[in-house]
Amino acid sequence: MEFTSIGVVRSPFTSHQGTPIQSAFAADAKGEIVLSPEYVEALADLDGFTRIWLVYAFHRAGSYQARVVPYRDTDARGLFATRAPSRPNPIGISVLTLERIEENILYVAGIDMLDGTPVLDVKPYVPTFDSFPDGKAGWLDRKIIERRQADKRFER
Amino acid sequence: MEFTSIGVVRSPFTSHQGTPIQSAFAADAKGEIVLSPEYVEALADLDGFTRIWLVYAFHRAGSYQARVVPYRDTDARGLFATRAPSRPNPIGISVLTLERIEENILYVAGIDMLDGTPVLDVKPYVPTFDSFPDGKAGWLDRKIIERRQADKRFER
Repeated sequence: MEFTSIGVVRSPFTSHQGTPIQSAFAADAKGEIVLSPEYVEALADLDGFTRIWLVYAFHRAGSYQARVVPYRDTDARGLFATRAPSRPNPIGISVLTLERIEENILYVAGIDMLDGTPVLDVKPYVPTFDSFPDGKAGWLDRKIIERRQADKRFER
Repeated sequence: MEFTSIGVVRSPFTSHQGTPIQSAFAADAKGEIVLSPEYVEALADLDGFTRIWLVYAFHRAGSYQARVVPYRDTDARGLFATRAPSRPNPIGISVLTLERIEENILYVAGIDMLDGTPVLDVKPYVPTFDSFPDGKAGWLDRKIIERRQADKRFER
């Protein structure tokens, strides 16, 4: 399947090292989603949402590994039980706080993507559809490392 | 960017008409995610999670429209303020309840995808990363149509 970048992330982070590993750990990290100008009309009504989903390509991720040692663990885990970027299809999803929209630029907080990340999609975050506070989170419920920033283990 | 299907959805739904519009409205809809057998190792440890994210292609969606009338509204809204499938990159995300895993097959509930949907990625749902019950949901907070099933408006 062929997908096309619809824009790019402007982020303070230029290398995996030191980048927040999740937007939940990046509340103060601000940046911009710069869409191609042709998409201005499609952004109508989005400013009524507190949060958005960004769907993007992990453009700096290393190649697929079936098992990885996640940032918050010391044991190798199956790749699909992690959010590591070295996936068969290197697609990431992040919840960002939408501060404002000006023309084709979304000003956001919670950036956990690298500068230059290609954007695939923007969707509204809808608590009724997306928020499930209960439930088990496997090895992450027992995680032993309180790490909030990435290192270079998954970078190519 | 070129992405490859890593598996396929087996679902009771074969047409947009009557398919739940969100997995949150499909608690009783059961199905299977059948991954390519080469990914069995990468599924290790996933069975500890109550829910998963499925990232997939809207393979039956019509072409991109900048404004759409969503299922739960009567007014046209900017595409990026909706979860409609007719997106520039037709990529969908759904939260599914993981019932069990047998080899390369994930048995799930909450299916809101069509039978035959190509799978792009599987990720664990992590409440700390993904669950934000508060916040505004724009036009959806004022929605006037209590619709829970799709019709053919976005089908090609």
